[in-house]
Amino acid sequence: MSNLDLLFNPRSIALVGAAHTELKLGGVILKNLMRFKGRLYPLNPKYNELMGLKAYTSIDDIPESVDLVIIIRPAPEVPEILKGLDGKAKCAIIESAGFAEIGDNELQDEIKRIGTGLGIRLLGPNCMGVYSPYRRLDTFFLPYERLKRPRKGNAAIVSQSGAIMICLFNAIRASNIGVSKAVGYGNAVDIDESDLYEYLADDKDTEVVISYIESLGDGRKFIEKARGLSEKKSLIILKAGKGLSGQAAAFSHTGRLAGRYEVFSSILKQFGIQEAGDFDELIDAAKALSYYPHMFPLAKGESRGGNRVCIITNGGGSGVLAADECMKQGLEVAKLPEDKIERLKQIFPHFYGVNNPVDLTAQVKDNDYVVVLNELKDYYDGFVIIALTGVTGITPGLAGLIKDFKKGTNKPIVFHIAHDGGSRRLITLLERIGIPVYPSAERAVRGLRAILR
Amino acid sequence: MSNLDLLFNPRSIALVGAAHTELKLGGVILKNLMRFKGRLYPLNPKYNELMGLKAYTSIDDIPESVDLVIIIRPAPEVPEILKGLDGKAKCAIIESAGFAEIGDNELQDEIKRIGTGLGIRLLGPNCMGVYSPYRRLDTFFLPYERLKRPRKGNAAIVSQSGAIMICLFNAIRASNIGVSKAVGYGNAVDIDESDLYEYLADDKDTEVVISYIESLGDGRKFIEKARGLSEKKSLIILKAGKGLSGQAAAFSHTGRLAGRYEVFSSILKQFGIQEAGDFDELIDAAKALSYYPHMFPLAKGESRGGNRVCIITNGGGSGVLAADECMKQGLEVAKLPEDKIERLKQIFPHFYGVNNPVDLTAQVKDNDYVVVLNELKDYYDGFVIIALTGVTGITPGLAGLIKDFKKGTNKPIVFHIAHDGGSRRLITLLERIGIPVYPSAERAVRGLRAILR
Repeated sequence: MSNLDLLFNPRSIALVGAAHTELKLGGVILKNLMRFKGRLYPLNPKYNELMGLKAYTSIDDIPESVDLVIIIRPAPEVPEILKGLDGKAKCAIIESAGFAEIGDNELQDEIKRIGTGLGIRLLGPNCMGVYSPYRRLDTFFLPYERLKRPRKGNAAIVSQSGAIMICLFNAIRASNIGVSKAVGYGNAVDIDESDLYEYLADDKDTEVVISYIESLGDGRKFIEKARGLSEKKSLIILKAGKGLSGQAAAFSHTGRLAGRYEVFSSILKQFGIQEAGDFDELIDAAKALSYYPHMFPLAKGESRGGNRVCIITNGGGSGVLAADECMKQGLEVAKLPEDKIERLKQIFPHFYGVNNPVDLTAQVKDNDYVVVLNELKDYYDGFVIIALTGVTGITPGLAGLIKDFKKGTNKPIVFHIAHDGGSRRLITLLERIGIPVYPSAERAVRGLRAILR
Repeated sequence: MSNLDLLFNPRSIALVGAAHTELKLGGVILKNLMRFKGRLYPLNPKYNELMGLKAYTSIDDIPESVDLVIIIRPAPEVPEILKGLDGKAKCAIIESAGFAEIGDNELQDEIKRIGTGLGIRLLGPNCMGVYSPYRRLDTFFLPYERLKRPRKGNAAIVSQSGAIMICLFNAIRASNIGVSKAVGYGNAVDIDESDLYEYLADDKDTEVVISYIESLGDGRKFIEKARGLSEKKSLIILKAGKGLSGQAAAFSHTGRLAGRYEVFSSILKQFGIQEAGDFDELIDAAKALSYYPHMFPLAKGESRGGNRVCIITNGGGSGVLAADECMKQGLEVAKLPEDKIERLKQIFPHFYGVNNPVDLTAQVKDNDYVVVLNELKDYYDGFVIIALTGVTGITPGLAGLIKDFKKGTNKPIVFHIAHDGGSRRLITLLERIGIPVYPSAERAVRGLRAILR
């Protein structure tokens, strides 16, 4: 897949449609590309210079073949631009809109023919392109003031939609996780989710792949690449367009997996690939998987060690909601071992609830959580900890205690802490030591389930 | 229900177990009660004065019968305290824990007998009590620094759990809505959700009731009062303990609706009472209902005018997720009228998507949303607007345009705007003019559905 490597690791880039002002998309992209450390060639026949860089009139004026060409010119011009790349480039991102998404299938077919004929791999059209913070590569047409970029991290985003890319960037930043590579692939005239899965399966910076799909290309290829990826990395998919079941193409024979959502979903299940039900589930799962990447990969056919969950709470109601959600998610809120019940009853005041959930009540002290964890760590596969910070016994010191406990175990822990003025510091400290914190009990459970299954 | 009026509108309060320091719960409660404008009598035999107020040794020393007594003494002392209230009080909140919730049913039965015998209505035990901002009444045992209180508003909270009360307070503040009354009723030895529904049905400050239930008392009474309330106000219920189906009591004959969650849920559906699936759904529905209380009440058997929804977005993917969620929630993403399609195609650039969802693309300008709203306001029952603020064409000015549009229609509008640094001002402005904003497309749809159904 050397051509996809050109997409993510180009040494030289040409921008067709570069502009002198950020009021134009070609100016925003140029500004964002200025961070790139390789050679950068802005093209615009009207200018000799753009943002301090020499501007080129045409691709032929550039003194080398470039690894990657980015096109941000009106759709009708794109075929001629592509033809001009013959022998000068092997990979192009077409960010321009105005193709199949507005019904112009002919124009889209034409650029596909040209790309195939010239051996140029195409990303797009109608796409955001690539954000690769490890390479300082950013082809997005949104300025940094408008869309803050996530930090470097282990999660790759593969999104057919630019809108969802924006939402994911915001959610990822709020989740204190980071991005390895983000690709908006739009209409997928050539490079599609399957190609990207294949590439990311071997990408050393990526441990988790977050994928948003509206329509699929080749169904067999998708299954093969999704399976291959999910054997090596964590893959979580949100499929949109569930209701648009009009497309009649059958799944495996025609090679078009579009249409029937139910078929798609059952195939994912069959192959153990995780599916998110909505945007929040996507980001909740991605957060947990990004914090606990060492839980993966699974060997073929292997399942996680178990699904026994212990809930430790200082508020009864929240513990009940967590237990309900565990049941819904197929996680077992298994009873405490008898000897541990006796032991914890000796340690704790009589009004603590020594069951599962363990209820430490409003009288809780930080250390109570760790007492429970230490007693029970060998009996459960994961822990949901609920800390309602309105009580005086919970302090930021809890994070330090959890940090020490975490050294001696590989059992995943997720927290639910309600966001309020007073809890921010504890949340930050916990996430800094690698513990994901969720805004509701149910979402914490869903995060843990993504790790355990 | 004059005794319940004493609970919410007391003229005088005695606090049994008052303390001099906020390190004790009795001190926190006393501090919070200092905001109360009526007569306040702290009881503690060890002190002559507490926080600047004269302290009383026993209830008999108080020079009057009090409307409300609050008890925060160890559970074993509570029966004797209650007996001492004979002729001195008609309503008591027992905040102390240590009753049925830790298995001591005998002690709980005993206080029930005493209350009944003396004609004293009891709230609790094991409860937070009452927060009533219109009356400056606050019996909660959490200090303001630890739990910020919501502002005055139209939403009442009826929560069996203190933990969920805390979570609701945080979520309500984040939703920019306010509270009329909040009641944590704990073990419900006497006053239960049904009594509170009955009271709130006639409470002039309350337009929406948010109810969290773990176990029910009298099933017939619950149905009667829940129906009565939901005919006058919006009622949204989150039932926890769904998995604990051990209790065998049948529903309508024995009068105990505990146990089978499926029965509970189907009865709610039968009577058109809204149920939330989890905490986020509870707060999302409550938010929409609080912003659009004028949509209620429904006359008996009447349903909302329709379920036809128009989605207006500037990002295709988010529109698709919203459309999927509409389908899931039984809302119809109905096609645009043919003449309106023609009209909008004349107005807008050719690359805008004039379907439902209407896709204004990344080239959107603020006014485009209002153009669509004005053209389509008579054809739909509600609008989901998605504004991805990463693009330059969306400004805080959008709120002003929506405000003007809103004057001429009673059709509900909900927004999805992703939370990021740049969107906060627009969100604040929209919520200030009465438009609820949600952090995901799906949650916006769920909010709208709560209003339309």
